[in-house]
Amino acid sequence: MLRTHTCGELRIDNVGEEVVLTGWVQRLRDKGGMLWIDLRDRYGITQLTFEDGVTPAHLFEEARSLGREYVIKVIGKVIERYSKNDKIPTGDIEIHASKIEVLNAAKLPPFMIEDETDGGDDLRMKYRYLDLRRTPVRRNLELRHQMMRAVRAYLDEHYFIEVETPVLIKSTPEGARDFVVPSRMNPGEFYALPQSPQTFKQLLMVSGFDKYYQIVKCFRDEDLRADRQPEFTQIDCELSFVTQEDILNTFEGLIRHLFLKVKGVHIANLPRMTYADAMKFYGSDKPDTRFDMRFVELNPLVKNKGFKVFDDAELVVGINAKGAASYTRKQLDELTDFVKRPQIGATGLVYARVQEDGTVKSSVDKFYTVEDLQAWATAFNAEPGDLILVLAGGRDKTRKALNELRLEMGERLGLRDKNVFSPLWVVDFPLLEWDEDSNRFHAMHHPFTSPKPEDLELIDDRPGDIRANAYDMVINGVEVGGGSIRIHDRRLQEQMFRLLGFSNDEAKAQFGFLMDAFEYGAPPHGGIAFGFDRLCSLFGGSDSIRDYIAFPKNNSGRDVMIDAPSPIANAQLDELHIKMKNLPS
Amino acid sequence: MLRTHTCGELRIDNVGEEVVLTGWVQRLRDKGGMLWIDLRDRYGITQLTFEDGVTPAHLFEEARSLGREYVIKVIGKVIERYSKNDKIPTGDIEIHASKIEVLNAAKLPPFMIEDETDGGDDLRMKYRYLDLRRTPVRRNLELRHQMMRAVRAYLDEHYFIEVETPVLIKSTPEGARDFVVPSRMNPGEFYALPQSPQTFKQLLMVSGFDKYYQIVKCFRDEDLRADRQPEFTQIDCELSFVTQEDILNTFEGLIRHLFLKVKGVHIANLPRMTYADAMKFYGSDKPDTRFDMRFVELNPLVKNKGFKVFDDAELVVGINAKGAASYTRKQLDELTDFVKRPQIGATGLVYARVQEDGTVKSSVDKFYTVEDLQAWATAFNAEPGDLILVLAGGRDKTRKALNELRLEMGERLGLRDKNVFSPLWVVDFPLLEWDEDSNRFHAMHHPFTSPKPEDLELIDDRPGDIRANAYDMVINGVEVGGGSIRIHDRRLQEQMFRLLGFSNDEAKAQFGFLMDAFEYGAPPHGGIAFGFDRLCSLFGGSDSIRDYIAFPKNNSGRDVMIDAPSPIANAQLDELHIKMKNLPS
Repeated sequence: MLRTHTCGELRIDNVGEEVVLTGWVQRLRDKGGMLWIDLRDRYGITQLTFEDGVTPAHLFEEARSLGREYVIKVIGKVIERYSKNDKIPTGDIEIHASKIEVLNAAKLPPFMIEDETDGGDDLRMKYRYLDLRRTPVRRNLELRHQMMRAVRAYLDEHYFIEVETPVLIKSTPEGARDFVVPSRMNPGEFYALPQSPQTFKQLLMVSGFDKYYQIVKCFRDEDLRADRQPEFTQIDCELSFVTQEDILNTFEGLIRHLFLKVKGVHIANLPRMTYADAMKFYGSDKPDTRFDMRFVELNPLVKNKGFKVFDDAELVVGINAKGAASYTRKQLDELTDFVKRPQIGATGLVYARVQEDGTVKSSVDKFYTVEDLQAWATAFNAEPGDLILVLAGGRDKTRKALNELRLEMGERLGLRDKNVFSPLWVVDFPLLEWDEDSNRFHAMHHPFTSPKPEDLELIDDRPGDIRANAYDMVINGVEVGGGSIRIHDRRLQEQMFRLLGFSNDEAKAQFGFLMDAFEYGAPPHGGIAFGFDRLCSLFGGSDSIRDYIAFPKNNSGRDVMIDAPSPIANAQLDELHIKMKNLPS
Repeated sequence: MLRTHTCGELRIDNVGEEVVLTGWVQRLRDKGGMLWIDLRDRYGITQLTFEDGVTPAHLFEEARSLGREYVIKVIGKVIERYSKNDKIPTGDIEIHASKIEVLNAAKLPPFMIEDETDGGDDLRMKYRYLDLRRTPVRRNLELRHQMMRAVRAYLDEHYFIEVETPVLIKSTPEGARDFVVPSRMNPGEFYALPQSPQTFKQLLMVSGFDKYYQIVKCFRDEDLRADRQPEFTQIDCELSFVTQEDILNTFEGLIRHLFLKVKGVHIANLPRMTYADAMKFYGSDKPDTRFDMRFVELNPLVKNKGFKVFDDAELVVGINAKGAASYTRKQLDELTDFVKRPQIGATGLVYARVQEDGTVKSSVDKFYTVEDLQAWATAFNAEPGDLILVLAGGRDKTRKALNELRLEMGERLGLRDKNVFSPLWVVDFPLLEWDEDSNRFHAMHHPFTSPKPEDLELIDDRPGDIRANAYDMVINGVEVGGGSIRIHDRRLQEQMFRLLGFSNDEAKAQFGFLMDAFEYGAPPHGGIAFGFDRLCSLFGGSDSIRDYIAFPKNNSGRDVMIDAPSPIANAQLDELHIKMKNLPS
């Protein structure tokens, strides 16, 4: 290579060696006849020094004329530093250069290539290749690679076989919106990009592959948010001849392996929580269990005391924000405003402070006696200094709002430490959810998820109450993975499609190949998929998956660096047998 | 799991154990009151036995009623076999079943699930999930997984970092035809699926990632052949601060590692051959060097002796098919017909036999003296029993035709053993190739390949003679990988685009982001990409990459199993702002 060593490699033992380094000029300091250059590459930073009068004059001038981000090659000798820098591994040495070669000059970057940069989001997206030079961004991708290696090591060791499934597949109306690809060779027809390899991995189980995995790109044409990208990466797994218990154990093992290998963190066995409990105690199917602050339902304690808001409410439910009794009127008003935001939608917030003497002072004192309020405190296990926050209204809406308030209070009280990890399984999800818009049931997980056998009797009268053999892994309030035991019986699968409002013809046209496969000896099977981008961002302590994707797209689905998507030539459209709507062609 | 052991696991040491197995009924033999069932899973086959009168009657009948490919669970005891089968690892034992549970019944498969099947191609593609059950097909995918692991192990060990690049990118007119994806959020605009991550990996070098790799799906909308698929997998690599020599050494190391780990084969250092020599001696830039049979050019020996065909020819060139002098008239006629096929295009074939007594007998004896022909034999180093085959005509066309004849003779003489591997590097490719159709130069490799500095002076007068810093790895006549040292200088890149007929505006619109990046400190860099499907098929000893892809497409780009591509709903077209041509909408 053009170098003998990287910029992160030289130590005190190398002193005296003649070396060749290559890299980028990170910083240049010129002071009192001395010149220091920090030379950077992927592996670290090494200091080059030049001394006026000692360094040959032409070399000194050459070094002085270098600009930030110039790419250079330096030949020099490793010298022990006079004042050592114990913040970097190469801090004991420096290079006395004898020759510099500029491999490529650099214009002034549009923002500082430093850990803390002055570049705004848009600028950094446009010059993503420069943003990627910054150490924290590079570290994110290094973490991602490390995670990927650890995932593969675990799954390989457990006899999983990685099989690549196709990217050009078939569009199906179920689920999110597909990206489609017009076919040149098959006029009028389109491929779709996979939202997941779901049907293929099930077919691999029918084929007898037994344990499959793939780290694979998936695609959803949905409106974007900070934690969504049109293309994302999934750790996709499927196993045969397993029960739900086997899957939970196997992937609990995976996540513990990851935490140990990547973060050096020991994780205990994962607790399991039913979907029903998660909704009841946290108002969410992905509870952040780094902190307790469970919901307490107050209906029996608060009804029929003359407070109409509570009397009319389907559910009165609250949390105990421990130690927050000192919250000022202003802070409480903020919280009230918070819960009344349209996206949260509560009509108001009732609070009760447990005072130093143990008595309770609430915003609804006129409706409740001292004993009533004392009973609230008991229900919440509240102590002096605690603040009880109560919402009321329709059950689902109120739970949802209180979940937001709980997370907000967790944040305010410093209970959501990014370095604390609290994974759990949420199990026993409902099989179906009612969709008001289309006035029919949707599959909560997907149409291939199996119902619990003991709930099958509800199928005609109360299908909404059927529980599924479905499970999610949740860490710190983030759903990192989810899966289910699948249906492997043709008739049950047909029944499921009917429940979801498919006609027999529709079901056959879309998923006939899978149902056919079930008739040729399909084993019992199940699986799981993890959102890899999200898992990386969680391990890295960030809320945004974009920070862990090399070339992400913005909220309009654009790659502003390469300027994609973009118009294509009419000849291309012609070959694909399509034309633009409302455009002459 | 539902089983205690797999079907490939039990040995003589397990005798006496009570076990639970799951799997597919491979075969059922019923003879003289005995019933044997071969139970199959991914891991192997285990024999179950039932004996009329010993096995409980209901269980015997149950077992007898099982069909091929039924999925069952069996509880039983491991017994030492009376007549052992040393062909399978479980051949020392069998299971005396005490209970059978049918997990799923199976219809009769449309073809035999055996190593040798009676199913035709079309049927096996439609029921690919059944074809994948056959051991040889499953082994292919297991080999693929093993190759993937070995590639990753080597690259990880050499400090490469795997970075995922986007699948939804920008369409460019250069290279093969793109698959495109209409954007819903950006009306009138399209993404393209990558033909390779070329520009992204170069940007990663500009970012300082130093050593990148990715095992990645790529896409080309081209007419298909047996060894082409619309989506294929590439081992994609790029390195900074390297010379061509570094890259050749690194990836020579990779391929030797693969042969050792996967095939147990030691490969010597890879020979290197210039493109010019490859064309001169093999008539191909991907010579099959498992056998010698090099071209010998005869112009000085054959001209001006009155044989018009040779006199008029730009090139007279032949090969020595050792030991083939005994070829009959009929066989020689076959060879003549072979070279005269339109796709080969020679006008005729001249041959000369070296007889037992050392004299040479040719099909053009009347034009050449005994001494002339003796000189031919000397030129070919031919011995008694050898057959010299000579073609004549335009240089390039004749070389191409003789390459085909050489491969054919290699095949006929048994010199192309699938278990012999002969890798080499072909280097010093031309930078450009002239395209008659478009009447302009095309980049032989791609527009980012750097010219050899010493050839740059030819740029104005003889650009066609410029050699590139480009290299291919060839094994057994198959190009398995190729790459180049890239341009990292904006002006040279602009010059290259001009040579290729791009206007400045076109170059900027398509690749402006890359040329901009070159101005912010781009290091010298280069890389390589291997066709992973092809590499797997080569290792597996097959000519077809389809055998190494789980769910391949047919020659019309169709997945006949899932029936993709397929029409999509008008509502989907509307959302994407497109309509079909020549269809009312």
